[in-house]
Amino acid sequence: MSNITKKVSWSSRGDELGPVGEGTPLLNGSEQPRHSRQFSEGGSLFQIDRLSTVDLEEEISAEEESARGQPKEIPHNEKLLSLKYESLDYDNSENQLFLEEERRMSFTGFRCLEISRWLICGLIGLLTGLIACFIDIVVEKLAGYKYEAIKQNIERFTEVGGLSISLILWAVLNFSFVMVGSILVAFFEPVAAGSGIPQIKCYLNGVKIPRVVRLKTLVIKVCGVICSVVGGLAVGKEGPMIHSGAVVAAGVSQGRSTTLKKDLMIFEYFRRDTEKRDFVSAGAAAGVSAAFGAPVGGVLFSLEEGASFWNQMLTWRIFFASMISTFTLNFFLSIYHNNTGDLSNPGLINFGRFESENLNYNLYEIPLFIAMGAIGGALGALFNFLNYWLTIFRIRYVHRPCLQVMEAMLVAAVTATVSFTMIYFSNDCQPLDSEHAEEYPLQLFCADGEYNSMATAFFNTPERSVRSLFHNQPGTYNPLTLGLFTITYFFLACWTYGLAVSAGVFIPSLLIGAAWGRLCGIWLASLASAGSIWADPGKYALIGAAAQLGGIVRMTLSLTVILVEATGNVTYGLPIMLVLLTAKIVGDYFQEGLYDIHIKLQSVPFLHWEAPATSHWLTTREVMSSPVTCLNRIEKVGTIVDVLSNTSTNHNGFPVVVQVSENDEPAKLCGLILRSQLIVLLKHKVFVELAGSRLTRRKLQLKDFRDAYPRFPPIQSIHVSQDERECLMDLTEFMNPTPYTVTQETSLPRVFKLFRALGLRHLVVIDDTNRVVGLVTRKDLARYHLGKHGLEELHLAQT
Amino acid sequence: MSNITKKVSWSSRGDELGPVGEGTPLLNGSEQPRHSRQFSEGGSLFQIDRLSTVDLEEEISAEEESARGQPKEIPHNEKLLSLKYESLDYDNSENQLFLEEERRMSFTGFRCLEISRWLICGLIGLLTGLIACFIDIVVEKLAGYKYEAIKQNIERFTEVGGLSISLILWAVLNFSFVMVGSILVAFFEPVAAGSGIPQIKCYLNGVKIPRVVRLKTLVIKVCGVICSVVGGLAVGKEGPMIHSGAVVAAGVSQGRSTTLKKDLMIFEYFRRDTEKRDFVSAGAAAGVSAAFGAPVGGVLFSLEEGASFWNQMLTWRIFFASMISTFTLNFFLSIYHNNTGDLSNPGLINFGRFESENLNYNLYEIPLFIAMGAIGGALGALFNFLNYWLTIFRIRYVHRPCLQVMEAMLVAAVTATVSFTMIYFSNDCQPLDSEHAEEYPLQLFCADGEYNSMATAFFNTPERSVRSLFHNQPGTYNPLTLGLFTITYFFLACWTYGLAVSAGVFIPSLLIGAAWGRLCGIWLASLASAGSIWADPGKYALIGAAAQLGGIVRMTLSLTVILVEATGNVTYGLPIMLVLLTAKIVGDYFQEGLYDIHIKLQSVPFLHWEAPATSHWLTTREVMSSPVTCLNRIEKVGTIVDVLSNTSTNHNGFPVVVQVSENDEPAKLCGLILRSQLIVLLKHKVFVELAGSRLTRRKLQLKDFRDAYPRFPPIQSIHVSQDERECLMDLTEFMNPTPYTVTQETSLPRVFKLFRALGLRHLVVIDDTNRVVGLVTRKDLARYHLGKHGLEELHLAQT
Repeated sequence: MSNITKKVSWSSRGDELGPVGEGTPLLNGSEQPRHSRQFSEGGSLFQIDRLSTVDLEEEISAEEESARGQPKEIPHNEKLLSLKYESLDYDNSENQLFLEEERRMSFTGFRCLEISRWLICGLIGLLTGLIACFIDIVVEKLAGYKYEAIKQNIERFTEVGGLSISLILWAVLNFSFVMVGSILVAFFEPVAAGSGIPQIKCYLNGVKIPRVVRLKTLVIKVCGVICSVVGGLAVGKEGPMIHSGAVVAAGVSQGRSTTLKKDLMIFEYFRRDTEKRDFVSAGAAAGVSAAFGAPVGGVLFSLEEGASFWNQMLTWRIFFASMISTFTLNFFLSIYHNNTGDLSNPGLINFGRFESENLNYNLYEIPLFIAMGAIGGALGALFNFLNYWLTIFRIRYVHRPCLQVMEAMLVAAVTATVSFTMIYFSNDCQPLDSEHAEEYPLQLFCADGEYNSMATAFFNTPERSVRSLFHNQPGTYNPLTLGLFTITYFFLACWTYGLAVSAGVFIPSLLIGAAWGRLCGIWLASLASAGSIWADPGKYALIGAAAQLGGIVRMTLSLTVILVEATGNVTYGLPIMLVLLTAKIVGDYFQEGLYDIHIKLQSVPFLHWEAPATSHWLTTREVMSSPVTCLNRIEKVGTIVDVLSNTSTNHNGFPVVVQVSENDEPAKLCGLILRSQLIVLLKHKVFVELAGSRLTRRKLQLKDFRDAYPRFPPIQSIHVSQDERECLMDLTEFMNPTPYTVTQETSLPRVFKLFRALGLRHLVVIDDTNRVVGLVTRKDLARYHLGKHGLEELHLAQT
Repeated sequence: MSNITKKVSWSSRGDELGPVGEGTPLLNGSEQPRHSRQFSEGGSLFQIDRLSTVDLEEEISAEEESARGQPKEIPHNEKLLSLKYESLDYDNSENQLFLEEERRMSFTGFRCLEISRWLICGLIGLLTGLIACFIDIVVEKLAGYKYEAIKQNIERFTEVGGLSISLILWAVLNFSFVMVGSILVAFFEPVAAGSGIPQIKCYLNGVKIPRVVRLKTLVIKVCGVICSVVGGLAVGKEGPMIHSGAVVAAGVSQGRSTTLKKDLMIFEYFRRDTEKRDFVSAGAAAGVSAAFGAPVGGVLFSLEEGASFWNQMLTWRIFFASMISTFTLNFFLSIYHNNTGDLSNPGLINFGRFESENLNYNLYEIPLFIAMGAIGGALGALFNFLNYWLTIFRIRYVHRPCLQVMEAMLVAAVTATVSFTMIYFSNDCQPLDSEHAEEYPLQLFCADGEYNSMATAFFNTPERSVRSLFHNQPGTYNPLTLGLFTITYFFLACWTYGLAVSAGVFIPSLLIGAAWGRLCGIWLASLASAGSIWADPGKYALIGAAAQLGGIVRMTLSLTVILVEATGNVTYGLPIMLVLLTAKIVGDYFQEGLYDIHIKLQSVPFLHWEAPATSHWLTTREVMSSPVTCLNRIEKVGTIVDVLSNTSTNHNGFPVVVQVSENDEPAKLCGLILRSQLIVLLKHKVFVELAGSRLTRRKLQLKDFRDAYPRFPPIQSIHVSQDERECLMDLTEFMNPTPYTVTQETSLPRVFKLFRALGLRHLVVIDDTNRVVGLVTRKDLARYHLGKHGLEELHLAQT
């Protein structure tokens, strides 16, 4: 039996891309390996990337960066596919240990597991609801103090002059809040920036985004979102809830926190990617559910954005988590609002109740709704287009944390100034209505008993502004106010999304849409006679809001349900659907959705639902990476250490082969073993020669693999002596003996379907005698992409 | 090269079950083959079953049956798995013809296909909406005439005595309608019986239920449901809409009707199981959407009941079909109700609008809701239990069409009599309220200006009764009325479900639940002081309805959305969810859901979401069927004809093998070919020897396979001369060269996951040298089942 690493070659592949990605040797990078840096952080960076030549730009804190001198320009664009992302493995490694455990487990054991799953989902819902509650109350309190202070200041100076002092006060307040939030995000946890929805989408798709589900990220996200909302940015507090829910789920389901170094020794069975992903889906759903009071919408969001294989039991658990989350939020908010036990409140955002009499619509309004959907799609595409260029600019020039903080502060100051200017020069005075009282009415230069209507739009948290636009009496806003507000807020929101602050884009989108929607309503009402159904502009505000949001994020089914649940009335279900579908079709004609743009700009190897339509002519032979480093079933320890240490064979999965006969016949595939498993084996020194002495020692169990999950130590931290290098390791018990395989003739769509439906990480390619000829990984499939001119192939980059 | 059929044996399988099911030889049956009968019907029975020994009991019309003498008792029970069902093949056969077509197709071509798909979905929605509209209007008209006639009759005889004449009139009217409906179903199309939901569930799961998506079935279903609703049975018209939608979808998407012998020569690309299934999902969703005015609920129903792999684009198309369906129905109903253009109406069932002020609920009501959920679950389980025994009784003793018609007529007469008796002896008089006027108030022995409240519950279509229970003023019904009504209707509905009539179980369930729910509400109100929120029993009627329906059908997510959409208000979303979840948990403890019971009693090889939990110890070796009949890549025509004709090798899929070297080494797997493909090849005489002359003839194209789809002729109808038997056939171009394969060591859950996620029909089992050792089909997997005492294996039966 030969003890050397076997390289099975397949030489027909002549493209210049070369074999790259998971499970394949890396192209020789131009940079020197930076092992030392990885070690210095005690392995915590290990899971960011095992490819030592990768540019770790985003993860490097400012101090380190300045120490390295000027950062080089990062050639980010959407035609690249980054190699720095690893995949999650949703295919169980069914090795002997696992099968033994499963076989030992009784029927009752499985029942208990099932009950634990429900319990965890309940906990996820509870904690997510509590976090939402916390954010809501803190934001409301802080924003209340802020607006009260500014209002008093403005009122004092309106008469005597000197409103510039008020402006400065406003700007400084916003400035400070945003600065705190931005510093937290930019310096301590860059992955907490934005809404987190693209990151969670990637996670559920099977891409491991470093540090995205850590406790630290959650803390910074929550603090960050409070700061940015109170800081008056054009952002919402809803999007980040999805990320928060996901982090809660990833934490709770593992029964331990690596950050807090606390292991409760429970839920150990769930310490693997498959189970964790299911819980993260539930967490994301619970987040949506808490944010919008939309439990069904949350489930649909999770499924639309993340799931591939629809499992009924899983869906019910997700639904349960969503329900508990809404329930918890409503219960605690009802206590907070001194209305204990009234659970009819929706979630964080409250669109207010639409009265039934205003809600009727007629057939001849359908074309109008569709037209508004088209406008929303076009405006959404414009928003995405502007944000796309802005993001490219940011990636190129604003990637240092201090620059990011400065940009955020600039935006805060500009937002305050613009708002102030708009309010100052507006003379849209409306009578104070005791029924629909505004929380912070500003009189400014209006007559007594009147208030400035423009101020209502700006001088409020965005959620309140949306509600005012939906429900205020016809005539509350004049068209000029709405027009100016729309334009200003559109650009502010576009500039704000992508800043290094935690913030969502849902509410700003709704606000922009509600403003131009109401404008449409007013315009239509002026065409028709008064008193007709046209007279209610709030209806058009709702449609506009849906159109704008749909045009930006391009979700349909889940968004329909979320909006219907948030408005509390299904009568508008049909128009909202039509509008969202139109917005999506029109928007897709110009540009992708905002989240997809950001995912592409991060060069994430994201697998879409289906292989590109015109890819049937590609076979596995063209797609796969080869040659592949294989290991023998009984392999020399030295060889394994060398393979794992060698940066040019930087694999995560290795086919295991066995030599059947003594002659030179090539070895046959007999299993697949993961890098993480090999590392645990090396750490525990599971060598054949030590097997005798191992009788006294504990046999290696699944628990050892689970304890190391998910932060497996790097190979360099494992000491293997020269003597031990000569030992042998028997992989039989630990490898997955039945990896999924395909032949070289299989077409790309077929491989894609298999890969996507089963959530694979490695797919072994064999020839007709069961020899390994290649390996297909996520990057091999994500590379192909349908462009404007047919099938395109993305370049692979190490950034 | 050997031209004989190769039988690859694997002898380690010692169980007595033997190799059965698709792709495996059949056990020698005890009955004689009945080929002659299959031929006499011109192949139309061919797709029912190709297994000639199968008992065709259900499909045999009465005349034929009596000719054969007494039918023998059919040993139906849920521990059997029937061999008479074939599978659908959701895995594309990616043979050379297919790949060539795909490769030839331009990007624009794919665009056009995508647009056609949307177009078809729109058409499906439109037609489904129109059918729903037709059913609704006809039922309303006919039921109106019927009730008017009986009402006048009763009023005439109340004073003078002789109400027995009214009873007879009522019974005779019901009797006649039900007789017509029942004769249509029992004699002409037995598959149109019931709601059709179990059948569609099976279809979407991948089981081919004979004739389930034919035009004739649709016509009989529509007529049958009208008859049974007008005939006053305890049934609803909603369930059958799902089946109707599915038939519409299967018809429209194929661009032709085999029944009408009309081929529009469009949508030919969609003539295969994969595409057809997608459209049938959309049709089912459109049906739900029309029935309940619940487009989102429809999509979720389709996904919850049918889908396995969630595809975003597909979901949107399903959503689109649902939208169009609701829209069409609402539009035409608004014209019918002289309210043109008001689209705010929901679907067929109208729960009426719940006013917001009655809708608030409080924390302390949650335990009550949960308790009601538990009651609903228990009552649902009781319903299912009774229906289960009734169904077994029916399968044993009431399987002749004439008996079935007589049973249906008996039920109709009993329903009328019981209703009449209840009304007659009830003295629950209520004042006539002009606001909530009943359509057909019966005065009977009440004072002038009053009406009999019991009559309201019985003397109405069930939909109207549900609405009355939800919305009538507190005090409209007295508790005794409700109690008696609940009990009576419970047993009537239970007896009715499973009769040979087209009818749904949704509305009766809702009605039972609404009745006892309202009873709970009244009881609670009597405990509390008047004027409190307890005072509205309508709220509890809604909760009770949800609990009862959930307890019977055991859907959660989709049912929540359906109910929320049907009530038009999301405030009750959370309680409905809680109630449905509780009802499901409690119900599942006792008994399965009604649909699952009926699927099991039909012994359908239904694949659940996951393999049984404790099945990890089973490997493919134990599960697979072997030996398998394989074909050579270049095979003698005679051999193929023999294999196809031989009833003991009655396959649907054959692994194709190739002999690599000249020595006695076993042949390697190189593809998989389906029976249907071989038949088309034989029909077109695609023989190697005729290849020369074929130059002048047209080359066989995919179109030829599509034209034959889905009713491929039986092998016996193809004439092959003795000379032709010596010819050779080259299968290379037509076989699927890259079938999915597994090894013998793969565990059952792993095989199950692969099979279920990809919708396979055949999964080839190979050894480590790529030789075929077995075949896994649906029946091999469906056989294992988690019973009360762990893993159980179902017996395979030919009935």
